[in-house]
Amino acid sequence: MNTKPAALASYSKFVLTMLLMLAIGTASGQQSDLRVDAERLHASWSKLRTIGLNDNGGSDRVAYSQYNKDALDYLSSLMLAAGLDPRIDVAGNLVGRKAGNSSVLAPIITGSHIDTVPNGGHYDGIVGSLGAIEVARTLHDAGYITDHPLEFIIWSNEEGGKTGSRSFNGSVTPDEMGLPSLGDRALGEGIEFIGGAPARLNENRREPDSVAALIELHIEQGAILDRENVSIGVVEGIVGIRRWNITVVGFANHAGTTPMNQRRDAMVAAAQLASAINRIITSEPGSQVGTVGRIEAFPGAPNVVPGKVVMSLEIRDLSMEKIGRLFARIESESEILAKQTDTVITLEQFYESPAAITDERFKRLINDVADELGLSSIHMPSGAGHDAQSLSGIAPLGMIFVPSVKGVSHAPTEFTGKQDFVNGANTLLQTIIRLDQQLR
Amino acid sequence: MNTKPAALASYSKFVLTMLLMLAIGTASGQQSDLRVDAERLHASWSKLRTIGLNDNGGSDRVAYSQYNKDALDYLSSLMLAAGLDPRIDVAGNLVGRKAGNSSVLAPIITGSHIDTVPNGGHYDGIVGSLGAIEVARTLHDAGYITDHPLEFIIWSNEEGGKTGSRSFNGSVTPDEMGLPSLGDRALGEGIEFIGGAPARLNENRREPDSVAALIELHIEQGAILDRENVSIGVVEGIVGIRRWNITVVGFANHAGTTPMNQRRDAMVAAAQLASAINRIITSEPGSQVGTVGRIEAFPGAPNVVPGKVVMSLEIRDLSMEKIGRLFARIESESEILAKQTDTVITLEQFYESPAAITDERFKRLINDVADELGLSSIHMPSGAGHDAQSLSGIAPLGMIFVPSVKGVSHAPTEFTGKQDFVNGANTLLQTIIRLDQQLR
Repeated sequence: MNTKPAALASYSKFVLTMLLMLAIGTASGQQSDLRVDAERLHASWSKLRTIGLNDNGGSDRVAYSQYNKDALDYLSSLMLAAGLDPRIDVAGNLVGRKAGNSSVLAPIITGSHIDTVPNGGHYDGIVGSLGAIEVARTLHDAGYITDHPLEFIIWSNEEGGKTGSRSFNGSVTPDEMGLPSLGDRALGEGIEFIGGAPARLNENRREPDSVAALIELHIEQGAILDRENVSIGVVEGIVGIRRWNITVVGFANHAGTTPMNQRRDAMVAAAQLASAINRIITSEPGSQVGTVGRIEAFPGAPNVVPGKVVMSLEIRDLSMEKIGRLFARIESESEILAKQTDTVITLEQFYESPAAITDERFKRLINDVADELGLSSIHMPSGAGHDAQSLSGIAPLGMIFVPSVKGVSHAPTEFTGKQDFVNGANTLLQTIIRLDQQLR
Repeated sequence: MNTKPAALASYSKFVLTMLLMLAIGTASGQQSDLRVDAERLHASWSKLRTIGLNDNGGSDRVAYSQYNKDALDYLSSLMLAAGLDPRIDVAGNLVGRKAGNSSVLAPIITGSHIDTVPNGGHYDGIVGSLGAIEVARTLHDAGYITDHPLEFIIWSNEEGGKTGSRSFNGSVTPDEMGLPSLGDRALGEGIEFIGGAPARLNENRREPDSVAALIELHIEQGAILDRENVSIGVVEGIVGIRRWNITVVGFANHAGTTPMNQRRDAMVAAAQLASAINRIITSEPGSQVGTVGRIEAFPGAPNVVPGKVVMSLEIRDLSMEKIGRLFARIESESEILAKQTDTVITLEQFYESPAAITDERFKRLINDVADELGLSSIHMPSGAGHDAQSLSGIAPLGMIFVPSVKGVSHAPTEFTGKQDFVNGANTLLQTIIRLDQQLR
């Protein structure tokens, strides 16, 4: 038996590895060379794409549909091949757990969603779901065991209200179970249909700081990465959102007989306020956005001076304080305009979603990993909501974006190039390996 | 028999009358003292008010309803008492003719309408209708015969499209007869219901310049007379109207992920254009009005940057040239805004109603009559449409306005004071007497 040469070879390899580790100056060894299998990843994407594919080339794999269930079955098979033990939790999330070396460390979670909007695309949620499972498979095939346990989770019903991820923070109310989903089933019925137990949702609740890290890979639904030709977006956080109804009340009058200087025209006031909103939002540096997406004039006839206009205002930013400050400026402007136009303007908030800021260490780490993989990267906020934000306060958060061509999303033409997808999965893989080491 | 003293008295009266005529410097004699019977006028208004009165205190006497028919029956009885020969013409107009001294002169027409909008008021149209019949009664009671024949006309369906008056200019198409009225009947069916003959509408057509004068008394549907405390409005004309649909096309996008400087926000462009419209319309002296009465954003959700906004534009003025010039300025502004906002803006006209200018002689005469009656007056355009405009080109036009409190119209709270109503009727009476003399 040639045990000696083998032992020698093993020893040599150890020394080489130590030298390599010193050379690249980090705590990674062989594992820093680990890469996902691009072809395997693409094959799983090609297969998943067929489940719910419609005649427009879009996906009808809405939450809690038969397509959704079939897709979860397929992903379970992938998880099994990756050495995980897939199960559907009470909220209908597909969870594959991989034990770590330590029995005391909290888990690192990664995953995304595979449900789509009706006639949606094949990348939103899918990239982070298949990317996570490919990471599991890569680690499994390499025989690499992290210290932290890993949880690979396909969250249920992201598009219809982040039901699966929100079950982790306990904000899903029993009443919601009766609400319609984007498909044919009510939420509770749908969760049951895919194997969950809606009456026991509270069992999913996780305590604050009970998760070591939550990392989500996702397509960027703007066009920033695509336009600037950058591979990786290091997400600074998921923006906070506040929405208001703005009601302008003037006096409806005959558009022929009411002289201009006698009008209390709600439309004139609303138009000036909508212009002012755009001016105020763009008057400060930063990535804040403000939108008037809906407007209606009453009574709404060409020959009647509008007595009332109702419009929506939405402001998003990573800083809730900044949102509040911008809104205060809009409110002041509305008071001035109300006086000038002899109207009454009220701004009533009807929705608020707090910002979820990502962890500074995670951002640096994702940035470093991208550098080492030779991928360009920029830091950016996520203007869209994601499952990750539901874990705010339960886990430190990290998010990795890959480009979506022209920022198209929620449409059949949504597209992320094969290499961008693979880049994202490799960044996720290496980020998890490093996190595991750094968080020990 | 004391024939001599009677003849002497008669002679004295003649001399006195001649002296009086010289004293007031006009061609009127006793007839300049003629006044309508205020109490009789008010009694007829009180009676007509009950026909179609609803629980809100408003009028449901819409065209071609049973109420409309009942009211025409009542007005026929008033016409009979005024020595007229009432008949319903082919278009459902109630026409009472009074022969003149001359068999060759063209008729002088006066009248208005008694149909209301649903839940309308008790003055719009009614003042000019009952005012005209009271003029007929006053002349009849005084035994005064004009040289011109007089036609007292209650036009049918003013509120639903001036069908009766438009039958005089031949613009009512056979197709219109199938259109719904403001009540339960289609127009043709309704005309038949009140005694007309829709298939023979063309018999109503009058040749250009075939009518000596058309004088309409009406409430002012703005608040100018009321606010300025003026009794009589000498109408300079009925404004022309042009209406456009303005379509702004940008690009619909996610309101969270689309940076402000990457947006093609149709709402921002539309808001700036609506503000510009108001600025342009008010930038020139005059009584022109411009209105954006209807607006809609697409897809119309608070979290989507609008890809399209459609809004209406209406401009009214006595001068069609001025309307065209103001529109050209708005069109230029829209081109600049389209460039600035990277949107496409189109302005498509969908309605045009030419201005109907009143006769200079008639305006002077109405002004003089008001002076002699001790009534304050101002010259003003009519921003609203009236039956009179249908006779443009067929007759020289004159219109007399009386105040409507706060300019309220088409509502149960529409109100014209009793004295203002009587002032209007007396102005109409004296205007017709003078016109008859001047136009001989």
